[in-house]
Order: sequence, then structure tokens, then C-alpha cells
Amino acid sequence: MPIPLATRVFSLASRPTGLPNPSDFRLEERPLDPPEEGQITVAMEYLSVDPYMRGRMRDGASYAAPVELGAVMVGGGVGQVIASRNSRVPESSYVVGDFGWREHATVSGDDVRVVDPGLAPISTALGVLGMPGLTAYFGVKDVCAVREGDSFAVSGAAGAVGSVAGQIAKILGCRVAGTAGTADKIAWLEELGFDAAFNYKEAADLSDAWRHACQSGVDAYFDNVGGPITDALFPQLNVRASVAVCGQIAQYNTEGADLGPRLLWHLIVKRARVQGFLVFDFQERYREGLEALAGWIAEGRLTYKESIVDGFDNMPEAFLGLFQGDNTGKQLVRVA
Amino acid sequence: MPIPLATRVFSLASRPTGLPNPSDFRLEERPLDPPEEGQITVAMEYLSVDPYMRGRMRDGASYAAPVELGAVMVGGGVGQVIASRNSRVPESSYVVGDFGWREHATVSGDDVRVVDPGLAPISTALGVLGMPGLTAYFGVKDVCAVREGDSFAVSGAAGAVGSVAGQIAKILGCRVAGTAGTADKIAWLEELGFDAAFNYKEAADLSDAWRHACQSGVDAYFDNVGGPITDALFPQLNVRASVAVCGQIAQYNTEGADLGPRLLWHLIVKRARVQGFLVFDFQERYREGLEALAGWIAEGRLTYKESIVDGFDNMPEAFLGLFQGDNTGKQLVRVA
Repeated sequence: MPIPLATRVFSLASRPTGLPNPSDFRLEERPLDPPEEGQITVAMEYLSVDPYMRGRMRDGASYAAPVELGAVMVGGGVGQVIASRNSRVPESSYVVGDFGWREHATVSGDDVRVVDPGLAPISTALGVLGMPGLTAYFGVKDVCAVREGDSFAVSGAAGAVGSVAGQIAKILGCRVAGTAGTADKIAWLEELGFDAAFNYKEAADLSDAWRHACQSGVDAYFDNVGGPITDALFPQLNVRASVAVCGQIAQYNTEGADLGPRLLWHLIVKRARVQGFLVFDFQERYREGLEALAGWIAEGRLTYKESIVDGFDNMPEAFLGLFQGDNTGKQLVRVA
Repeated sequence: MPIPLATRVFSLASRPTGLPNPSDFRLEERPLDPPEEGQITVAMEYLSVDPYMRGRMRDGASYAAPVELGAVMVGGGVGQVIASRNSRVPESSYVVGDFGWREHATVSGDDVRVVDPGLAPISTALGVLGMPGLTAYFGVKDVCAVREGDSFAVSGAAGAVGSVAGQIAKILGCRVAGTAGTADKIAWLEELGFDAAFNYKEAADLSDAWRHACQSGVDAYFDNVGGPITDALFPQLNVRASVAVCGQIAQYNTEGADLGPRLLWHLIVKRARVQGFLVFDFQERYREGLEALAGWIAEGRLTYKESIVDGFDNMPEAFLGLFQGDNTGKQLVRVA
């Protein structure tokens, strides 16, 4: 395949205050380098948008450096190798990697993972067989450390991580309750075999809703959202409960201190454990996670959904949709 | 010794809203039963007042049942056996147990622990060699799970638990910082070998104060107080920090939801663990804890202070003083 001389990218045009808007991103053309020794050039097929990207738009210390103004937005993608000078990654193969918001990228072949399109659609490398799936796997298995018979609850339950987390908890023998924000999402959670699911946007009282959904209390809570949904869950924690703090999307667009009820005293009474985590903490065990996830998919015990927006131009809109709950399952952008 | 026919007790007269006041307790005389087979009668020498008692005055579910209105207030005491029908506990011996707020008590000899007055003053059985000391021991060693070289921080650092926790962390090789509310307390923490200590009541900004006290951040935090002191600490947590939630005295007299900045997102970025605990969770290991504490005292590595109020009549005032920070070290009431 011919390598284009230039490619389109989205760079960070400004640091948003509160909810970002499309003008915070700039669509521009950048030169595309041909691969040097060890490098490959990839034509994207799917790009990922994820809530964590909001954090990278913010200046200041976090677990990763912020995106510089004018730099290409960070993010994962999956695409086909159109030129290779790395014997490990042949031309025409499919790869997943942290390419950023770009239509083409030239990167080291050692920084990507080759994807077998015969095993599962390549888009799953960004979802159930990628970071979101692995996040769910380690969050449920290691951070929540669920045991058979546990009452498990998950917020953001119809999202890329939450929907997989709930199904894994089910596979591991838990009773599973979840919350999401539309009737369609709730219907999907019921299809997935959740024992209880409620629409938090229609709950008159979130505490009552959790109490009704988890009648024997909560032994393990997988939190993707934070905010009032999580505030309402804490009183339902059982003795020796565990809470995996995976995401706090309710707060990602707030500036300064977001006030809520103080929660720590619940932890004394319940002798509960709250643990924050990042999937990168489990890097040496990705293979274990991917094998388990792929096995469950093959057995028909784990299913997934993708929400796909067409066209690279629509990256900002797809990203912003995450904060309005537009996606069911994994939100992707189809580049081609 | 003759067994009196009656004894004085404090019962719970009313459930307080907010800070309790002396009229919530009623001083009354109750009949004192002579010991039946297996029982002993104890004349109190010291009674303990502890922040947890505020929780027992509140109606509603917690880790222990509330004190009923009209019932004797719960609490620990140490005293001398004046009559025994239990061969395990001879007359004249000293015992510690959950006797409640009473001058004398007749209880099963199997529910008390015999104290050797030759090893340490009997009052220590309510402090450094009792529940507060054990709480500090398991909180630092198991819940914080400190490692040599850790930066350790403790709130309520001059209290019965905090002062022991800080010294144990020091013994285990940590750098130790603490906060308390008077200049005298801070001076004492410095005597105890704390590497840094500040008076939170005089801090212009609590975040700055913690940052200054813990210049390499905080690997382990032992929280006795909650509220703004803890809010200000969370941003100082290091990656993989641990937080032991032991007490939240700042909140014990608040009604309804106490609002503070949402803290959970810090845990993601820092992959931190927050664990609530009660000393009772470690019941099978009390012997280990007491041996370690007694050993450190004997070696001169662990010291303690007691704040003593004289006279059983003053139990309510001694208890209420806890919420004004009157005590340095363990607050006791000398009964005789």
C-alpha cells in the first residue's frame, strides 16, 4: 500500500473548564513519516474514546502527563499495517496500540500488539478484549476480590467496563445489580443476566433504588461513576465489603472541590475496604486476562456491545457523548 | 471485703442531638447482686471514656447495639475483685472488663482479663495495654501495613490511639508526622520522637500544613478524626498509599449528612487503599499485640500519658471533654 505523505489528526486546542466542547480539539493535517528500521505505519480502522481522556486534557499532576496544548490527543486505536520495517509485525497484519487521535501513525513495532482478526472482530481489541475488558477483569477478580455468593453492584453498568464487570461477577458466582441511565440500557442489562438493574435517572431516591436492587446489601461494589450514585450505595455496604474505584465520571468535568456526604465513617462500621486502581497496575497479567475473556466469549458466557460513530471527523462528538451517556457498551469511532 | 448492697451508675437519660451534655446521663443508685457461681464482684478503680461511646448513644444500626434509654452506659473499667466465686479470678486480684459506667459490678469471671499490677500500672489496661494500644498496634501493622522507610501520618496524634500509633510506626522504621490541637500536645509529640507535628487549630491552610509536615508525601495514614483534617491529607497520598480509618471524631456529633470534598478520585490516581477497622476484628491476636506493646514499654521505646479526672461523678464531663480535645493520651476517670 502507498504511504500517504500526510495524515489527519486531532490536537488539543484549548484546556476546557467544565464540560469540553468540540472547539477544544483542532482537526489538522500533519506530515506522516515513513517507517524507519523497527517501525511500522498503521492505517486506523477504529479509534477509541474513553472517559479517562478528560483527565489528560487537564493541566496538573496525575498518573500520566497531560496532553500539551497543540499536541495530538492520546488514545488507543486498531488498524492495519500498511508498511513495516519490523519483522515481528508483517505488512497487512492488524495491530492495536496507543496511536492517538490520528488516521495514520508511524510507531515502533514493539509498542503494538498484533490482533488476530480470525478470533474476534478487530474492534474488540479496544473493548472487551482490550483495556476496558481487562479493567473489568482485574477490578472484579483482584480489586473487588469477589467470592461465590457475593452480592455485587456496579455503576455505569452499561458502559464498556461496567457491562463486562457485571458479567464477570455473574460468571464468578455473584448476584449482580447495576445502574445505568436509559431504559434501553436497563433492558440490555437484563438480557445480560443481571439480577437487578435500575435507571438512576428515574429513581425517586437513589438509596431506596440500591436497597431494592441489593436486598441483602452489597459485598462488592465496582464504581465507574462516583457522585450521588456512589454516595447512595455506601450505606448499603455489608461488613467486610470491598469497593473498587475504577472511574468517577460524575466528577471529570467539575472544577475545584465537588462536595458530597463524607463517606469514611461507613468504612469503620462496615470494616470495608476501598481500593483505587488502574489497569496498568496489572500489566504483567494481561495475557491471563485476555485468555479468560476470550474463553468466556467463545463459550457464549460473555457478550458485548459496541456503539459506533462513523468518520474520523466525529471524534470530538463521540468523546463528548460519553459524558451524556450516549454509548451502550464500548464507544468507538470507525475511521474509514 | 464487704459487698455493698447497691452501687452508683450512670444511665442514658436521653439521646442527644449534636454534642451531648451532662443531662443526657443520669447518676443513680442500683442494687448490686452478690456473685453467683462463676461470678465476681469488682470495685472499680479506673473507668475509661472513649469517643466510640457517642455512637452507642445513637439509635440505629451500627456494629454494636445502641444503649437503651435508662440502661447503664457501656464502657471499660479496671478494678479489684472484692468477691469471687470463680477460681480463675481470685479475690483481691485486678481485672479489666466491659463493666459499664458503674462503681461496682458483678459479672462472669470469664468475661474479664486478670491484670498484673506488678508489670505496669493497672490503669494501662484501659490505655496503652488495652483497647487503644491494641487498636494502634493492629491499625499500624496490619491495616496500614507499614514498611520500613514509609512516610506515616496520623491525626488525633496526641490521643490514646494516635500517640501509640505514631510511636509504633516510628519503631517499625517509618518517618512519622502528626497533628493535634494544642501547643502542649505538639510539644509532647516532639518528645515522643515524631519527625513533624503541627497544631491544626493554628494552621492557616491544612493542606499546606500536611505538605510541609510530610515533604515526601504520605505512604500510610492513620485516621482518628475525619473531617477537614483528613480532606486536606488525601491529596498528599503517594502511589499505593494505605489509609486506616480508625475514628471520625469530627463527625460523631453531627446529625444527617456532613458534606466534604469528594475523595474517591484521589484513590484512582494514587491506586490507594482505604480500610476501615475495629480492634475486635483482631481478637484472636490480642496476646501478640499486648506482648509487643509491653515489650516496647519495657525497652523504653513506647511511652504513654494519661489524663485523669477524679471522681465517678465526673464521668460525663470527662467524656464530653474528649470532643473538646481536653485529653493528652488516654482519658480516664479515677473512681475511688
